[in-house]
Amino acid sequence: MQQTWRCAITAADLGEFGIIARIAGRLPQFPAVLLGPGDDAAVVRAPDGRVVVTTDLLLEGRHFRRDWSSAYDIGRKAAAQNLADVVAMGADPTALVVGLGMPGDTATDWVDGLTDGFGEECALVGASVAGGDIARSDLVVLGVTALGDLGGRAPVTRSGARPGDVVAVAGRLGHAAAGLALLLAGRADDAFPELADAHRRPRPPYACGPGAAVLGATAMADVSDGLVQDLGHIASASGVRVEVDPASLPIPALLADAAAELGQDPVEWVLTGGEDHALVAAFPPDVSLPAEWKIIGRVAEGEGVQVRGRVGQRSGWDHFRD
Amino acid sequence: MQQTWRCAITAADLGEFGIIARIAGRLPQFPAVLLGPGDDAAVVRAPDGRVVVTTDLLLEGRHFRRDWSSAYDIGRKAAAQNLADVVAMGADPTALVVGLGMPGDTATDWVDGLTDGFGEECALVGASVAGGDIARSDLVVLGVTALGDLGGRAPVTRSGARPGDVVAVAGRLGHAAAGLALLLAGRADDAFPELADAHRRPRPPYACGPGAAVLGATAMADVSDGLVQDLGHIASASGVRVEVDPASLPIPALLADAAAELGQDPVEWVLTGGEDHALVAAFPPDVSLPAEWKIIGRVAEGEGVQVRGRVGQRSGWDHFRD
Repeated sequence: MQQTWRCAITAADLGEFGIIARIAGRLPQFPAVLLGPGDDAAVVRAPDGRVVVTTDLLLEGRHFRRDWSSAYDIGRKAAAQNLADVVAMGADPTALVVGLGMPGDTATDWVDGLTDGFGEECALVGASVAGGDIARSDLVVLGVTALGDLGGRAPVTRSGARPGDVVAVAGRLGHAAAGLALLLAGRADDAFPELADAHRRPRPPYACGPGAAVLGATAMADVSDGLVQDLGHIASASGVRVEVDPASLPIPALLADAAAELGQDPVEWVLTGGEDHALVAAFPPDVSLPAEWKIIGRVAEGEGVQVRGRVGQRSGWDHFRD
Repeated sequence: MQQTWRCAITAADLGEFGIIARIAGRLPQFPAVLLGPGDDAAVVRAPDGRVVVTTDLLLEGRHFRRDWSSAYDIGRKAAAQNLADVVAMGADPTALVVGLGMPGDTATDWVDGLTDGFGEECALVGASVAGGDIARSDLVVLGVTALGDLGGRAPVTRSGARPGDVVAVAGRLGHAAAGLALLLAGRADDAFPELADAHRRPRPPYACGPGAAVLGATAMADVSDGLVQDLGHIASASGVRVEVDPASLPIPALLADAAAELGQDPVEWVLTGGEDHALVAAFPPDVSLPAEWKIIGRVAEGEGVQVRGRVGQRSGWDHFRD
């Protein structure tokens, strides 16, 4: 019996321009993109007359592992974390551009999966991958930049929180951290697949960002480094103290179960886990918040973040110290 | 006598947020930046209602070497190659965002040099580094994205060249390729420092990009992969043939001398060397071009690039095949 080998087509087989053509052919373009991939630069609508721009660098082994996440998941997550930064300003995402470094022997199937992940996450908010750049590198490297439009609204920065404001969260907290803890313990996919998936594919509450701007949010951030740390950025930028009531923080049964399984503290995940890309915002005290937003504390005079009943916990993530 | 050791402060000493604060403090912000570094995203003016956006990934060992280029030079070059893509659309650059990966033991002096290089190159065109992201990595990685404003002009793409148009170049050709050849041969800094510097710090003819749009350019590209290859992109996007007369290509004495020294062909450097980031454009035949633009050929019916009197030469650079 003859044995059949599947010969994967690689990036090196296609060459730089073959890969670019293949990627561009898989990416839907929404109307905000006036000129998409294939020229020196893309052209994107900016009807507001201002453009919101944010960039992230994601490195294999540091921000993701190819044995833990599929190419599709990596694309979804890389897009999501940048789109979350755009909505955290109160803006509507319009486009992404992506720099992709990868080994020459990367299978084109892997590139297709990554491309589809980017495209589908962007489509959730009506944005497009408008352009990019590719290079050969030993490990996979992603440089992702997202653009957004403010639609006439003022950007919601980190610096506008005022004493008396309420502090509220939209989206999940601690799920990605629980998923990571389970993956590190080798206990993820069998026992808690939903939490492993939360690590692989965050679900930022996109619509809540522009929504918060309309509701009059005075300050906002996406929770990328951990709730306490990101509230700390708001506190220091605004010159205020943020008081959090841990009793108000939702600990779903799923998190409690996973924490019991690993002998860890689910409240710690919720307070310091970052990669769910929830949104945290301050609102005037008389605001009437829709159900997506849950009040977790208040703004006071002073400085720093006080979590009632807890002292000295680790606040979040520092890329040069972790 | 007591010996004194100079203790370099490193990225890891400062931590992620210390580095960001240090970088942000060194970067001048021009008025196009409405909200600079320090929030989830930056806000940049886009008065035209459209924004031009381009991104590049630059990897240590592949796009630059830290033993050949100072941090300052790497910053200048990384900024220049992105700003050149913006002006090649006929737009005025407004802002850059930069993702920076580097080892934890990177000296802060090195980061300062890189920051200054970015800031000074951007200042040449009145643009600013409006934001960024940093991460720890084994090698230096740069993800650079540039934005620009079209000022009411149509973008000059690669696809508008028409038979009968003249083809012209602004800026230097072959200098960076000569510098690289000299560096590879270990003959750069002693004999031809100007060419080594051309490799380290390209000098794109920034003003010629928007200028070409005003002059009615029908197609334009920056020469990043090599003149023949980038003209090939224009030929295929426009559905035309581009004919280049090598006799019209300037070979400065400096290039001829360096080529003689190394036993190489300076015309090859001019035709296939990319990193000078010259601009090449097609113009209607009746155009009156200022001195910065030199006519090097014409557009005809057909396909591909014909360099009179030369056959089968290597056309330029493919990142997955070189």
